[in-house]
Amino acid sequence: MNPIKRVAIVGGTHGNELTGIYLVKKFDRAPESIWRSTFETIALLANPKACEIGRRYIDIDLNRCFRQQDLENPHLSSYEAQRAKEIYHIFSSKNTQQQSLIIDLHSTTSNMGITFILASQHPFNLQLAAYLTSVYPHIKLLAATTQNQDSPLLRSLSELGGTLEVGAVPQGVIDASLFQQTEQVVGTILDCVESYNQGTMPVATNPLTVYHTIGAIDYPRNKSGEIQAMIHPQLQSRDYEALNPGDPMFLTFDGESVLYEDKSIVYPIFINEAAYYEKGIAMCFTQKQTVVSQ
Amino acid sequence: MNPIKRVAIVGGTHGNELTGIYLVKKFDRAPESIWRSTFETIALLANPKACEIGRRYIDIDLNRCFRQQDLENPHLSSYEAQRAKEIYHIFSSKNTQQQSLIIDLHSTTSNMGITFILASQHPFNLQLAAYLTSVYPHIKLLAATTQNQDSPLLRSLSELGGTLEVGAVPQGVIDASLFQQTEQVVGTILDCVESYNQGTMPVATNPLTVYHTIGAIDYPRNKSGEIQAMIHPQLQSRDYEALNPGDPMFLTFDGESVLYEDKSIVYPIFINEAAYYEKGIAMCFTQKQTVVSQ
Repeated sequence: MNPIKRVAIVGGTHGNELTGIYLVKKFDRAPESIWRSTFETIALLANPKACEIGRRYIDIDLNRCFRQQDLENPHLSSYEAQRAKEIYHIFSSKNTQQQSLIIDLHSTTSNMGITFILASQHPFNLQLAAYLTSVYPHIKLLAATTQNQDSPLLRSLSELGGTLEVGAVPQGVIDASLFQQTEQVVGTILDCVESYNQGTMPVATNPLTVYHTIGAIDYPRNKSGEIQAMIHPQLQSRDYEALNPGDPMFLTFDGESVLYEDKSIVYPIFINEAAYYEKGIAMCFTQKQTVVSQ
Repeated sequence: MNPIKRVAIVGGTHGNELTGIYLVKKFDRAPESIWRSTFETIALLANPKACEIGRRYIDIDLNRCFRQQDLENPHLSSYEAQRAKEIYHIFSSKNTQQQSLIIDLHSTTSNMGITFILASQHPFNLQLAAYLTSVYPHIKLLAATTQNQDSPLLRSLSELGGTLEVGAVPQGVIDASLFQQTEQVVGTILDCVESYNQGTMPVATNPLTVYHTIGAIDYPRNKSGEIQAMIHPQLQSRDYEALNPGDPMFLTFDGESVLYEDKSIVYPIFINEAAYYEKGIAMCFTQKQTVVSQ
């Protein structure tokens, strides 16, 4: 692989996820902190209007606007559709032979700690993931489910890098500890790219535990679409822990438990994510795999 | 005091505080659960439009619309100003000689557990508070600072009752455990009013610890009004704990601690409440007092 010529640190893809927004603002004030010798680093606020009013989005979710067909569709004119095209232009207007790496900074109300969602299983990403988990053993790795060309996500603009998803933190709130941890991980990624470009990237041989999303489940709802149950207290905040057949999953407002009835063990993530109520997702199910990065 | 003739359980004064919203919906489906023999109980969704779109408010914060002069001002026409007048009408149109008690259900991203904010220090409220803390020793009591006639808050429509503030829970999220605890406390308040009306209210003689708000402090900001610091990790989630002179309060984005420099011990609450960033409040300071309810 050629050297990586650019790293884009993106915050504010969702305007109420403050960790990334305030990190990008910090990097803008102190660009020397993200400067490295072998590549260009840009810090980008993806949805400035949404950031200004502290909402996830203005018209539609920006992080669902990056399908190739939508980026090429001149009839899509929502604020976010336009903004997606502008961001796409930033990435495609420069020399496309030069490889970019994207770090898209997100936060979640789910108790997912620091999760690195790999944009692809490109060998470089696996090496990066291996290195990150050797430095930060608590980082969780999540494999993207969609092929990049079909994906509506911002991170799909490059196969290198991915999303840093941190939580639990409410929308509209900065948690100082998560802020600092995210900043550290971003710095380590930059260092890692630098050493890769210099041919000195440390080879991590540790086997990786990678979670793969296999589906999502909605809240029980009535005919009007209103939710009829909550995440069960025994499942709340237990992202990445095994959910076994027969374990409680929901609690109805009348106090009845709804059990997980499938036959295989799954590892739920995005449990009780605020932004996913409207998307019909109570949690995502993953499977756990061990991958050797070499 | 005459018997209490009506209890109003209000949810959704803020449209993204789901605990109260889904409790009111539950009470609407099962009115028998809030029915008692000596008074009428109504369950009211205060800001239905905001609830529908899951935002705190449409135009302005409904819970700042209940000043007497605003309720009587025909020129105020925002959605919330109108809604405040409608709610005021519900309370003033019936026989005003009949005393009402209000329970306004709120949630917070701050780690305030279950807090009962007394609408006034009316002897009945103190008796109710004493009874509640005898049943639920972890409940915190907070005295309202404003006189009712000047207060912009919904709960000021009656001097009896107050606000149930529960957290920490993100906006737009239901926490099942907090939902169930809130429901229990509401039931206990209804039972308490019933026994008061029947002359059998248990007399609780335990001294009460009541927190009194004495002020609020904003985040450090730059000239453009942007915040320059976060709640310090050592203060995060420590609502109701003593903040001593010299204790860290904020952490700047550059990693410097900002200390609490006043001379007296205070007990911060509403630490890192999402909705208060725009109000210029990083936390409220309280003092702790012991009150004997008899």
